[in-house]
Amino acid sequence: MVIGECSTSTAPRFFPMSRLRKDAAGILVRRLSLPRRSWASSKVQSFRTLAVRASNPLPVASEASAKVIDGKYVSKLIRDEVAAEVSRMKEAIGVVPGLAVVLVGERKDSATYVRNKKKACESVGINSFEVHLPEDSKEEEVVKFISGFNDDPSVHGILVQLPLPSHMNEQSILNAVSIEKDVDGFHPLNIGRLAMRGREPLFVPCTPKGCIELLHRYGISIKGKRAVVIGRSNIVGMPAALLLQREDATISIVHSRTQNAEEITREADIIIAAVGQPNMVRGSWIKPGAVIIDVGINPVEDSKSSRGYKLVGDVCYEEACKVASAITPVPGGVGPMTIAMLLSNTLTSAKRVHNFQ
Amino acid sequence: MVIGECSTSTAPRFFPMSRLRKDAAGILVRRLSLPRRSWASSKVQSFRTLAVRASNPLPVASEASAKVIDGKYVSKLIRDEVAAEVSRMKEAIGVVPGLAVVLVGERKDSATYVRNKKKACESVGINSFEVHLPEDSKEEEVVKFISGFNDDPSVHGILVQLPLPSHMNEQSILNAVSIEKDVDGFHPLNIGRLAMRGREPLFVPCTPKGCIELLHRYGISIKGKRAVVIGRSNIVGMPAALLLQREDATISIVHSRTQNAEEITREADIIIAAVGQPNMVRGSWIKPGAVIIDVGINPVEDSKSSRGYKLVGDVCYEEACKVASAITPVPGGVGPMTIAMLLSNTLTSAKRVHNFQ
Repeated sequence: MVIGECSTSTAPRFFPMSRLRKDAAGILVRRLSLPRRSWASSKVQSFRTLAVRASNPLPVASEASAKVIDGKYVSKLIRDEVAAEVSRMKEAIGVVPGLAVVLVGERKDSATYVRNKKKACESVGINSFEVHLPEDSKEEEVVKFISGFNDDPSVHGILVQLPLPSHMNEQSILNAVSIEKDVDGFHPLNIGRLAMRGREPLFVPCTPKGCIELLHRYGISIKGKRAVVIGRSNIVGMPAALLLQREDATISIVHSRTQNAEEITREADIIIAAVGQPNMVRGSWIKPGAVIIDVGINPVEDSKSSRGYKLVGDVCYEEACKVASAITPVPGGVGPMTIAMLLSNTLTSAKRVHNFQ
Repeated sequence: MVIGECSTSTAPRFFPMSRLRKDAAGILVRRLSLPRRSWASSKVQSFRTLAVRASNPLPVASEASAKVIDGKYVSKLIRDEVAAEVSRMKEAIGVVPGLAVVLVGERKDSATYVRNKKKACESVGINSFEVHLPEDSKEEEVVKFISGFNDDPSVHGILVQLPLPSHMNEQSILNAVSIEKDVDGFHPLNIGRLAMRGREPLFVPCTPKGCIELLHRYGISIKGKRAVVIGRSNIVGMPAALLLQREDATISIVHSRTQNAEEITREADIIIAAVGQPNMVRGSWIKPGAVIIDVGINPVEDSKSSRGYKLVGDVCYEEACKVASAITPVPGGVGPMTIAMLLSNTLTSAKRVHNFQ
């Protein structure tokens, strides 16, 4: 049996996804080629596709027994939908959605992320604004620019690129972003509304929203299903669990203190893995027929690659695809969904403020 | 085998605890006698008591195999602690904590609840303020009084008695309460902070806080344990799950759409039942040795009672106490903790605003 590198990985250890970059995914996908897959569009019928806004049937590739959930394709659909709506709004009321990004310091990875967001905005017709402040800026200066964007009616979403320099209080800077423009959805008021029945958040965090969107687009029903979320980060695991619960799943949350992660995971009909530990979820953790959404994007050594590394998920793909009924690949699964959801949130914000249906 | 009325109850149906009165408990305990129990203080050694602030050992009665978690006793301890702190603060800085209650309409139960809160405040030396508005008041009038309390430095906690008359928008009235005085902890900003790692809510909702406090006081460890919360209401189930997760339990949330509630519940080391369905959780649902916190307070017909009814929990006590290692009775378990936590939250608020340690 070929089980790829999963078997040679270190014994599963459980690390919190504290350093998960909320937006790494979108970028990584740009830099990397997609995994081999056979496009078997005839298999699409096995899912009741919910792509009501798109006339295209969704591609469903088959690898071993699992269907491959193609995030790259779905994110493209969403971008096209956003572009069409941006254009319709501009024609109807002359308003163009705008996204402002605040970048502090000289981190190369952050600069790349910001550049990619800018490109993504351009590709769908959303205006992008950028402020780039030096590493040694004062907190008040950053807040001053955020306040300016709060007051600027041409800005509908504000995103502070993390991490901020260590001398800054991340929490107080993020709190300065107006909740009406918090397209990241990380404001505690948004998280609170997400947790509460009968309340509606203004924005849902992009990566977990992307996970649920993939399930929806592939017609995978959530209601009444057992869902296990692995990881409880503020940016993925926790909001993903709240979203699944809003859709009437019965949720369990597995984390670094969980004593029997494998056993609990094996009870799940739907697994969302967001822990930042390469290949942690092995085939034996998976109930036959479960659906797997793999949020992890972990670099592991790869002598065959010219870069010396390759990217793998939190789930051992080679094993999982033999047990699961559907699975997202890494890269090309959840990754591209994050920026697509950011664009969608920015559009939603502009529509809301202008009461445009 | 005597299994009491559980066997004659209707087949377990699962209703959301939508009408659970967040404060019913404290009052019911006043009106009802406690269940029979033998006070076996010698058994207290079987729990590592965490009542660090109290020198009294906690009473642990034994009924069948389960220890009885005595909420009436613990709530008395907490009230005594609050009273001592109120007195110390008054002597040190001349400040007396104040709780304001807004009551609209003529519901007798609401009037009773408000009266009991007032009495509880008096008993620990907290000032209580009350506004009683007529049923046909306008929303703006209610908000005007809330604003007055928001601005009043002698008021440290504001509580709007629910339900409000049907012509009022409950959400917008509750939103008018300043987050610094939201001693109920129901503001979405507080719930969001409760959900997020690294954030601290200003207040934690009283009933779930009372559940966790009982576990703490009885030295029941939570970290790494599997906890199942039955019910996902905004006022009990959901915040109880968030609290358990903050304490590093592995949580699962069972609700009206859960397909295999019994099986999932049986996996739990700790069960918090908050669903408002009499005797729903049967003995067979419980893993031997599990700890049960029963939030339900359900009236059921009882021809032997002069009132024609008695109160039972969501858990079939007669069966559960033979399987569990510890259990809260109904009444006398979680019930009395709610008002105790309300007093504690009001004290915390006053301490915070005056920076009194």
